[in-house]
Amino acid sequence: MKAEILAVGTEILLGDIVNTNAQFLSKELASIGISVYRQEVIGDNEDRLLEAFEEAFKRSDVIITTGGLGPTGDDLTKETACKYFGMEMVLHEESYEALKGFFSKIKKEISQSNMKQVYFPKEGIVLSNPNGTAPGAILKKDNKTIIILPGPPKEMKPMYLNHVKNYLMPEGFGVIKSEVVRILGLGESTAAEKLKDIIDAGVNPTIAPYAKQEDVIFRITASGKTEEEALEIIKPIKEKVKARLGIDCYGEGEDNTIEQVVGTLLIERDLSISTAESCTGGMIASRLVAYPGISQVFLEGAVTYSNESKTRTLGVSCETLEKYGAVSEQIAKEMALGIANRTDSDVSVVTTGIAGPGGGTKEKPVGLVYIGLYYKGAVKAYRYEFNGDRDKIRTSASIKALDKVRRVILEGKLL
Amino acid sequence: MKAEILAVGTEILLGDIVNTNAQFLSKELASIGISVYRQEVIGDNEDRLLEAFEEAFKRSDVIITTGGLGPTGDDLTKETACKYFGMEMVLHEESYEALKGFFSKIKKEISQSNMKQVYFPKEGIVLSNPNGTAPGAILKKDNKTIIILPGPPKEMKPMYLNHVKNYLMPEGFGVIKSEVVRILGLGESTAAEKLKDIIDAGVNPTIAPYAKQEDVIFRITASGKTEEEALEIIKPIKEKVKARLGIDCYGEGEDNTIEQVVGTLLIERDLSISTAESCTGGMIASRLVAYPGISQVFLEGAVTYSNESKTRTLGVSCETLEKYGAVSEQIAKEMALGIANRTDSDVSVVTTGIAGPGGGTKEKPVGLVYIGLYYKGAVKAYRYEFNGDRDKIRTSASIKALDKVRRVILEGKLL
Repeated sequence: MKAEILAVGTEILLGDIVNTNAQFLSKELASIGISVYRQEVIGDNEDRLLEAFEEAFKRSDVIITTGGLGPTGDDLTKETACKYFGMEMVLHEESYEALKGFFSKIKKEISQSNMKQVYFPKEGIVLSNPNGTAPGAILKKDNKTIIILPGPPKEMKPMYLNHVKNYLMPEGFGVIKSEVVRILGLGESTAAEKLKDIIDAGVNPTIAPYAKQEDVIFRITASGKTEEEALEIIKPIKEKVKARLGIDCYGEGEDNTIEQVVGTLLIERDLSISTAESCTGGMIASRLVAYPGISQVFLEGAVTYSNESKTRTLGVSCETLEKYGAVSEQIAKEMALGIANRTDSDVSVVTTGIAGPGGGTKEKPVGLVYIGLYYKGAVKAYRYEFNGDRDKIRTSASIKALDKVRRVILEGKLL
Repeated sequence: MKAEILAVGTEILLGDIVNTNAQFLSKELASIGISVYRQEVIGDNEDRLLEAFEEAFKRSDVIITTGGLGPTGDDLTKETACKYFGMEMVLHEESYEALKGFFSKIKKEISQSNMKQVYFPKEGIVLSNPNGTAPGAILKKDNKTIIILPGPPKEMKPMYLNHVKNYLMPEGFGVIKSEVVRILGLGESTAAEKLKDIIDAGVNPTIAPYAKQEDVIFRITASGKTEEEALEIIKPIKEKVKARLGIDCYGEGEDNTIEQVVGTLLIERDLSISTAESCTGGMIASRLVAYPGISQVFLEGAVTYSNESKTRTLGVSCETLEKYGAVSEQIAKEMALGIANRTDSDVSVVTTGIAGPGGGTKEKPVGLVYIGLYYKGAVKAYRYEFNGDRDKIRTSASIKALDKVRRVILEGKLL
């Protein structure tokens, strides 16, 4: 089976947005053995869209479109696909009910323009969209299939994964599976060097490192006759990789995050935590709260960006502030002790630093962050210099802080 | 002039990388008035590439390719373009010298495979590449132009900006400029309906709505003989749009955010703020801290996810907690008063809600969030139901909370 991915949207042709949908779908299709012959982007225009369908079906069996399902007049992907197949659209009751539910939830009247989103041809399979107002559809005629998906990735991805993937999965398909091992504390090249012999020996499974925004991953990919077989091939190599990387391997899986790992560890070991943040300003707390269930162990967070709040809420001494400055090892330690005492938590983690763009000096440059840790009566602070802009520095500091919490729990003491 | 952007690379079709080059080039071309008719991605394959050239020249005058200029056998963009035009390649001395220089700099012998990168047709313009080993080229025959650029963005972008942009710039070129107006509190379709007559009347400038991840924007685009002229054409329409949308228009510009707007307003009006967050768990504080300079006005944030912390730090009463539950109008008001009193701030904003996935009931479903606002002695709470997963609910609640702060400052009182 050959597929093409057709993004519809003038905003992509104007360069307003990057077509990340094409990457997601390409990767997904490759994983079930469907080769993508082309990716294309065209404007919101009926003639061009008809032309694109015409051309693509000369080469491929399936066209997956993204975008152009919105409520406005220039959204015409579905209408054009129906025109191409000569299919008539009628009101789709189920989608209409869902739309009514959506609007009643936001306590608004259904806007007239949204009504076009619930019309579909009888011949099609309608794909529900719990994350938006535009359902998708699978339209098939003769040997041609057009699969219509919404443009916003948050709507498109679950729709693909929940409905389309199974529909497209070839029968008796030789399965490709991959698993991911996640690393913090090592760069991509250092990590890859540690695993060089395992990587070089890899045919099935293969092992490849990727530097991600927030961490480094190794993707281990195997093919087998069945899913189980592919996973069995991955298993021993994954264990070998994890053993080799030791504590620098913090997690596994596509969507695993450091906050999930820390949250799980805290709950498993029945350890309570509190946070106090200056430069990260709530980012660490916000990440912890992203983990459902954290309420069991997360006692309180303080965002003490100002000096007054550091003394008021954390009991940091004015003398220490004056003598060493707010961004110092001493203050980081007092902050960690302060929030731990205030909340009586087992662990606390704090940050104080200079996120920039202003405020840096020669001794205390932009990017300097002290991370303070309290663990069962002991307290310590660690000095880091992070690169990048304000956002990158704050993000790096938050991740490092969470990773420090993970390590102190696993090691059982402050190192 | 019509252009198409043709990325060549099997790795893009496999979903290994996102085609950010297409966005860069689209934006650049739009800025000099060249409309991009299509973006395409095809594999490293001579036949498919020839087919793509054939098709694209039926529609467009210029094809810009990215990728497929590497030293290996499957890199064949340049070779195929020459074949398409019937041009013969010869050693390009200048490029050969540059290649020798490149390898002597990294203290290596020229690899034989790199030699193919310095062959070009005599008819072409060779584009030097100071950032890599593959020069680009402009090939022209009759009215057809193929512009060949390398794939790595670090090589492609400077080559485009230094060589190609001027080459393509139309004589006496009319400049296209666009400006963005940002909306919160109205959906895309409602906002578009409000502006229907202005949108419908728009030829130069045109006005188009886009639903973004966090807000809705209207892009107003005009062409003029000069940049100033284009901006002059935009100006009155932009003012009209802003006047029509009133307080729902919170900002302007590509990268403007609600936290920037709120931060600026607070500083301008010398109003101090404090936050207390339950379900958003530090997200509001973290957004405020993303705005440099916020330390002047941001007194303190509390992440009071647990009931104990709500009483300890915000002075919320246990009776109210017991009677109404943590997610209630009453608690939101007590939280807002509590943090304002604690910090003596002019404004405070707080959240308490159910972010899910668990914890919802019929009366208090997942997505229910109360936002509490304190403004100069008065306090009020607002009830919302947000859609989506935990992350989406928390993000929506944070944005709504910041927007409530903006509105109360502009309106001068709690409405």
